[in-house]
Amino acid sequence: MNGAQALLQALVKSGIEICFANPGTSEMHLLLAIGKSDAIRPILCLFEGVATGAADGYGRMADKPAITLLHMGPGFANGMANLHNAHKAHVPLINIVGNHAVHHLQYDSPLNSDVPAHARICSDWVHVSESADDLAASGFSAMQASMKGWGKIATIIVPSNHAWEEACIVPSPLPPPPMETILPATIDDMAAMLSNGKRTALILGGRALREDALKAAGRIADTTGVALLCETFPARMQRGAGRVKAVRIPYPVENALELLQHYEQFILAGAQVPVAFFAYPGKPSLLIPEGCNVQTLARIDTCAASALKRLADRLKASSEPIQIQASGAALPLPTGALTPQSIAASINILLPDQAIVSDEGVTSGFGIYVSTENAAPHDWLAITGGAIGQGLPVSLGAAVACPDRKVVALQADGSAMYTVQALWTLARVKADVTVILFNNRSYAILNHELARVGAGQPNDQTLSMLKLSPPDIDWVHIALGMGVRATRCRTADEFHLQFADAMKTKGPSLIEALLMAS
Amino acid sequence: MNGAQALLQALVKSGIEICFANPGTSEMHLLLAIGKSDAIRPILCLFEGVATGAADGYGRMADKPAITLLHMGPGFANGMANLHNAHKAHVPLINIVGNHAVHHLQYDSPLNSDVPAHARICSDWVHVSESADDLAASGFSAMQASMKGWGKIATIIVPSNHAWEEACIVPSPLPPPPMETILPATIDDMAAMLSNGKRTALILGGRALREDALKAAGRIADTTGVALLCETFPARMQRGAGRVKAVRIPYPVENALELLQHYEQFILAGAQVPVAFFAYPGKPSLLIPEGCNVQTLARIDTCAASALKRLADRLKASSEPIQIQASGAALPLPTGALTPQSIAASINILLPDQAIVSDEGVTSGFGIYVSTENAAPHDWLAITGGAIGQGLPVSLGAAVACPDRKVVALQADGSAMYTVQALWTLARVKADVTVILFNNRSYAILNHELARVGAGQPNDQTLSMLKLSPPDIDWVHIALGMGVRATRCRTADEFHLQFADAMKTKGPSLIEALLMAS
Repeated sequence: MNGAQALLQALVKSGIEICFANPGTSEMHLLLAIGKSDAIRPILCLFEGVATGAADGYGRMADKPAITLLHMGPGFANGMANLHNAHKAHVPLINIVGNHAVHHLQYDSPLNSDVPAHARICSDWVHVSESADDLAASGFSAMQASMKGWGKIATIIVPSNHAWEEACIVPSPLPPPPMETILPATIDDMAAMLSNGKRTALILGGRALREDALKAAGRIADTTGVALLCETFPARMQRGAGRVKAVRIPYPVENALELLQHYEQFILAGAQVPVAFFAYPGKPSLLIPEGCNVQTLARIDTCAASALKRLADRLKASSEPIQIQASGAALPLPTGALTPQSIAASINILLPDQAIVSDEGVTSGFGIYVSTENAAPHDWLAITGGAIGQGLPVSLGAAVACPDRKVVALQADGSAMYTVQALWTLARVKADVTVILFNNRSYAILNHELARVGAGQPNDQTLSMLKLSPPDIDWVHIALGMGVRATRCRTADEFHLQFADAMKTKGPSLIEALLMAS
Repeated sequence: MNGAQALLQALVKSGIEICFANPGTSEMHLLLAIGKSDAIRPILCLFEGVATGAADGYGRMADKPAITLLHMGPGFANGMANLHNAHKAHVPLINIVGNHAVHHLQYDSPLNSDVPAHARICSDWVHVSESADDLAASGFSAMQASMKGWGKIATIIVPSNHAWEEACIVPSPLPPPPMETILPATIDDMAAMLSNGKRTALILGGRALREDALKAAGRIADTTGVALLCETFPARMQRGAGRVKAVRIPYPVENALELLQHYEQFILAGAQVPVAFFAYPGKPSLLIPEGCNVQTLARIDTCAASALKRLADRLKASSEPIQIQASGAALPLPTGALTPQSIAASINILLPDQAIVSDEGVTSGFGIYVSTENAAPHDWLAITGGAIGQGLPVSLGAAVACPDRKVVALQADGSAMYTVQALWTLARVKADVTVILFNNRSYAILNHELARVGAGQPNDQTLSMLKLSPPDIDWVHIALGMGVRATRCRTADEFHLQFADAMKTKGPSLIEALLMAS
């Protein structure tokens, strides 16, 4: 057995099933080992950012890691933006990165660069294998590292000679890392805080946005009147008809300040203290009122669901939440102009039960989120780290993790272009993903941001850096070029028909929504 | 004046004319400053790897830096693969990277990451501005740093508050850095070495591949019989009819070993000692015979042209080289099957004088290089760092630097996909680039590499990670989707007609060459 085979064996024993791959010469022995394994399904991605973003989407839905297979420093660099998002999403994910043979590094050949320095930037755990014998142990350690808390980014760097040299030692899997427990005193403190008569908000994030945690939060809200808020960019929120609602803290800093100023104290469950996404001249970074009391019920890496349930029980809340989302099935059919609102209305009516929504709609997506709270129960996956080019890869990974669920990708045109290669892999694996491509021919959000920074009137030359036209991008052509069925719509009625068709048809498709008025 | 304006003023005074931009919120004040400047032309790129690759192409042809405008850590990460190539190409290039305001960093908001750590990996010089006042000085220092040797990667990180705060100090430009001189004794030593009767090769790289340096090398070869070799991946080689030829050291390690074993000693001019691109089991990393004598006439960052000229004069060589490339104009028209050879024949006949060839043809490109040595005089730009996705962006940058010269991009399908967004910017700026897209539906080079590593027979699952089909990529559709005129050809005759038309027509176009037999 060579080192590559030993590593693969360890990963299979750890429960790895999927490899999103974009390999090169230094990964050839790993490629052969994966090819020979019946347990790991390799999925070719035509750009590394697709592979890492897909592994993020997979991790969010499968709650266990996929592996990526990446080629040296530049290959890793191409995947870093989506690893940044995955890191902020707290997903489990393992990167396998090939590097030159150890004896070859000294020659500084053209592809040589500092691979560990790349890996350290967006990994929680990095290991460079020390020998062929070390690779199996590296695999088990990476699995353990990736499952710490709710998920970490673990990266193994594999010098090619370790992959091809003979490996003898086959170690055993490592136990999963322990989860930090929440003390009874914390539950008591939060219960007391909720009874002190102050206006309180419970900010939910991470695992506190899964259905079970939200149920417990709903029970607490029913009995105490606490407001339920949700972090601005949740990795995975379970929402829709029949579920407990949490109000998402808005992205625009002025709207977030307006919402949060109503509260005198905050309890965090799986969330961070809300801060502005960017700094703006004359505006605060911290979004909660100055001097207010903030306490933590459950940190991001702890079991928020169990903490919320214990708190609900401690408060003697009723066993089921009372205030839950109504269904939106009786809404009128949208008609007339095509707008984010009309699209939201169609989604509200047509979204199948247990669909998964990958939201990189950016300006178009914010309104759709608000208007789809009555849709059938679904999972909403937001862009967690702000590095655009996440939406299409995440939709791919979610579809691979959940082949029986429909995935809808809300996709802004500017962001779609970053990892447009994802369309090809959607076609290759016949992923059940419907992409709604919001074509407003603009980095629309940057026009808002330009106003928000208050830097004065832009001229045509400045605005040219925010406009995606000329030339107009024809997304139907691009999708067809990569093997994805595609249609275009200009009215709410056309969109409704095309989306209804997509919801009934299995496999990848793209609907280009021409939003010229927005 | 704010810091952004002060920085821009310094860059303009330094001679910067082009900005390849992919901005975000933290760069808004820089955007406004660029918009207001008449001296800097902003060119929007829809992915950062396009911006950095274009700046590389611009630097190779203009011999001075363009700036890139990038957005924080993930934006820089997306540009790193092509910065790696630019670094290995020794081009001058300045990155301007926005970051959070200094007071905002402590809140670890979603887009926060260690921007300087990113920058250090692929920059020769990194500076984080210390204040608004510091930005103008940073601009002048970056210019100086980028012009060291033949070119370095300089990166300025700009916290957004420095861009928007008032700047008072306007410093002066810095002198260009001095060039290392070559001692007379070195010239004497090389002259002696060339007279010792041993089989000698002069390996040319970097600036030693420009026409003037090649002329001097040709004079040396005429008088001493030294073999002229060229590094495997030149950043810019001036070649074609009427010029002095240097034999390119082949990429496949076995072919390189075969070529280099004929020599007992080597002289380096602007080149490194030849090493294998990758390590392979049982094959050497160092490609020259063990124990042979290697001396350096001119290091990469010194003036190889002047050193070669001094050496030629020292050897009393004739004033003009005798052995020069013949013209290929009388070649027969290619006909029949479409192959890299038939394409090379068309290029040989049709390439206009002073064309620029951006070569990321990979397996298809190697043969074309050899077969176009008799074409009209042209510049050949190779992929220097092995990070694929370079070809289209480099062709864009070259076309921006040299608007009066035709650019031909030899582009493999797999690599084209990495920075496919470059097509849109080619269309936006109406760049005079003809892309020849070699569609062999495969990472063909990796099939060769798989055999080369000798790891045994691959099965279908392994081969699936090297095949770009199914689905078949339709490059005509993709190009049209991004606004680029496109045609497809299946025979040598069709290609010849389409390429002839492209050579006569100004502006971007793509020819999809279906190479299914290869």
